[in-house]
Amino acid sequence: MPETPFLLLVAGGTASGKTSLVRTVAERHPDCLLLSHDRYYLDVEDPLTHDYDHPDALDTARLVADLALLRAGREAELPVYDFPTHRRQPWGERVQPRGLILVEGIFALHDPRLRAMADLRVFVQADDDLRLARRLQRDIVERGRDPGHVLRQYLGTVRPGHLRFVAPSRFHADLVLDGEAPLDVLAAGLEAMIGARGGPKG
Amino acid sequence: MPETPFLLLVAGGTASGKTSLVRTVAERHPDCLLLSHDRYYLDVEDPLTHDYDHPDALDTARLVADLALLRAGREAELPVYDFPTHRRQPWGERVQPRGLILVEGIFALHDPRLRAMADLRVFVQADDDLRLARRLQRDIVERGRDPGHVLRQYLGTVRPGHLRFVAPSRFHADLVLDGEAPLDVLAAGLEAMIGARGGPKG
Repeated sequence: MPETPFLLLVAGGTASGKTSLVRTVAERHPDCLLLSHDRYYLDVEDPLTHDYDHPDALDTARLVADLALLRAGREAELPVYDFPTHRRQPWGERVQPRGLILVEGIFALHDPRLRAMADLRVFVQADDDLRLARRLQRDIVERGRDPGHVLRQYLGTVRPGHLRFVAPSRFHADLVLDGEAPLDVLAAGLEAMIGARGGPKG
Repeated sequence: MPETPFLLLVAGGTASGKTSLVRTVAERHPDCLLLSHDRYYLDVEDPLTHDYDHPDALDTARLVADLALLRAGREAELPVYDFPTHRRQPWGERVQPRGLILVEGIFALHDPRLRAMADLRVFVQADDDLRLARRLQRDIVERGRDPGHVLRQYLGTVRPGHLRFVAPSRFHADLVLDGEAPLDVLAAGLEAMIGARGGPKG
């Protein structure tokens, strides 16, 4: 019988560097399943006014159920979200249990059920203005989105949601990493902590 | 013989709200001289690479000399800076002493000579990401500047200069105001403090 998968949660504000970090760690672990909390978004009625920065926007109950199956050594059928249409697809993606499961998202440390089942809880910390600059670099400079819209969304929902839900979740972390540090330094620190907690070696 | 002018310094990060605040206070004081530290910028050789976010970019010695004249009841000839050409004009602007002199700028609390001659030292505090959002709203949305250039400048000189010189100057303030508060609330608080220090009533 295989060992119970090691579950790692990685939270942090928008553009804090958490996605780059988990991707780097995942590359070193062939037996890894990388899950973005974002794939559990619920259907959106009006994308222009929708609040993506509230925990209720996500189907976290489904994520908890999927992780419980995988941790019990069983197959799970993960939801597939279509970002262009803001809708969950009618089909799922079947996955098998793996030795390491990484879950990343701004609310990965917000839900008590998620926190309780995790083996390691990590928060990636970066200054708010640096995160905003990185987000704008991505949304405006790289994706060509309208600066006025991006700033209204940041001030209207992203920033309030961060202050209300994301920043306080930092205090549930076992480990707080500096999102301004070089990626290889961060990944090495995270690997060491996974090993210290009895998780799989990369 | 007229009273010595009351000198008020107002510092704070870029887009913290200090300019709106001093303008509101100045409107209520007909006998007021409002001075932006920015008019003391030194000539710029290359505007694209110039570091405007270092105290050495400003001729603060000249500001101190001008304020000393005014505080002594004498006329001063203020420099006139031409922002389109990044050059000080060959002529000055003659001004007479007034009952209230307001000096605002990101480095208004940085120089010890300025701090020593002031009657009241104020720092306007606002979260870094909110200030960045406001600055981008002004530079990109309202002025149509290139988002990539504005973000590079923010990360390259504005943010380091703020962390190194501006944020620490807060601890020289007699009064720290919340730049996220409504402008009339801020102005009323500042008026009360001017009055408590024996300054002119608006």
